[in-house]
Amino acid sequence: MALQLIIGNKNYSSWSMRPWVLMTEAGIPFEEKRMRLDYTAADSAFKKEIVNINPAGRVPVLVDDGLAIWDSLAIAEYLHEKFPEKKLWPADAKTRARARSVVAEMHSGFSALRTHFGMNIEAQLQHVGPRVLAEQPQTRADLDRIVQMWSDLLASSGGPMLFGTFSIADAFYAPVVKRIVTYGLPVPPVVQAYIDRVQALKSVAAWTKDALAEHDFLEGNEDYRASR
Amino acid sequence: MALQLIIGNKNYSSWSMRPWVLMTEAGIPFEEKRMRLDYTAADSAFKKEIVNINPAGRVPVLVDDGLAIWDSLAIAEYLHEKFPEKKLWPADAKTRARARSVVAEMHSGFSALRTHFGMNIEAQLQHVGPRVLAEQPQTRADLDRIVQMWSDLLASSGGPMLFGTFSIADAFYAPVVKRIVTYGLPVPPVVQAYIDRVQALKSVAAWTKDALAEHDFLEGNEDYRASR
Ligand SMILES: N[C@@H](CCC(=O)N[C@@H](CS)C(=O)NCC(=O)O)C(=O)O
Ligand SMILES: N[C@@H](CCC(=O)N[C@@H](CS)C(=O)NCC(=O)O)C(=O)O
Repeated sequence: MALQLIIGNKNYSSWSMRPWVLMTEAGIPFEEKRMRLDYTAADSAFKKEIVNINPAGRVPVLVDDGLAIWDSLAIAEYLHEKFPEKKLWPADAKTRARARSVVAEMHSGFSALRTHFGMNIEAQLQHVGPRVLAEQPQTRADLDRIVQMWSDLLASSGGPMLFGTFSIADAFYAPVVKRIVTYGLPVPPVVQAYIDRVQALKSVAAWTKDALAEHDFLEGNEDYRASR
Repeated sequence: MALQLIIGNKNYSSWSMRPWVLMTEAGIPFEEKRMRLDYTAADSAFKKEIVNINPAGRVPVLVDDGLAIWDSLAIAEYLHEKFPEKKLWPADAKTRARARSVVAEMHSGFSALRTHFGMNIEAQLQHVGPRVLAEQPQTRADLDRIVQMWSDLLASSGGPMLFGTFSIADAFYAPVVKRIVTYGLPVPPVVQAYIDRVQALKSVAAWTKDALAEHDFLEGNEDYRASR
């Protein structure tokens, strides 16, 4: 039976983007089911349906032969175990530990970046970024840490991806790439070059294309636009 | 060379508690290094020292022969790979996927619970819990999800721990157990019985004893007490 990946709006759902980019880039076949993220609505169709699949009430969810795995990181580890030949994590144990450190850091951290720079692929909010960076010092600290992390990893791996070849780490930071672009956040050339390479990945380009074709507007995910 | 685990105050540091409880309960020997979490101070000794070890500037950090692994979840996965005989995750692949789902859910979620019910083992804040639950609906939603999750897992595994025998999942939810106790959060009997079993684990009892012996007071971690 085919793997099924349940995701949210491609324009907004940063958590969904990770496993989708991971599976697409690695060439793991799956069937996609997209759900509209109307979860802030009083009578949310999303909420009603998703709790039957995932008791945590969120996307993404990977369904493998009746087994529902929720949370992007648990999905990544499951795929790593199921498809060892895809080398989703770096092969060397110590490098893998470092990759898991930065991925787990993303998973539980960067809350200022996540709060103030929600993913919104189609939006043009380059005027918003610098203002928010100035007003919210914690967003600046988060961005500084991203820049330092990516620069260090690229210097030690030699690129083109964070750990040399594409890995779970690049999939997990792909939504951050999208945020930097949408909000026009200033980054040094070595980081900009990495951003360009991530944007050019076939998986990221395909996700972006689908996001731009959605033409949806969900107030709960719009902090800076009044309409499309 | 011995593994070294760098942690924060045992009274406050919920993230540190996880790998410490995990390693202690599983009988993995390590050397402990405790750092005082004065990170909100302008001239923080913690901040100055930790950045030399962990570029993310946080504890816990596991140091293995010069390799620093930060973030509690990356540490857990590293230990799982290094000590397969300890069976830190459930042995069955599907059960393991479910365990990783609930652990990753904790890792990135429950932000209301984390914000309003900071771990504070020695504090007696049983009068605070019910008030905050009423005032902050999101804390109630987080608690409801915990109760549902633990009840479901215990019913399907048969207990005594979430997945039958002790696993990473119990270590990751041990700080939630401590919060429920400190803030007197109401839970049904099946959950209370699990809480009692977690508190009786030798690792959790040892951590609690050390926490109570600290006699420290860090304002940045105290939302409800003016002094000890
Ligand atoms: N830690 C989860 C987070 C998932 C998450 O928060 N997903 C959002 C969409 S991007 C969602 O489903 N939100 C619905 C809600 O919060 O009710 C993961 O990594 O999968
Ligand atoms: N996601 C990290 C979180 C670690 C964390 O936030 N640790 C706190 C202590 S419990 C810390 O070091 N805080 C210092 C700071 O925020 O500056 C993990 O799982 O290890």
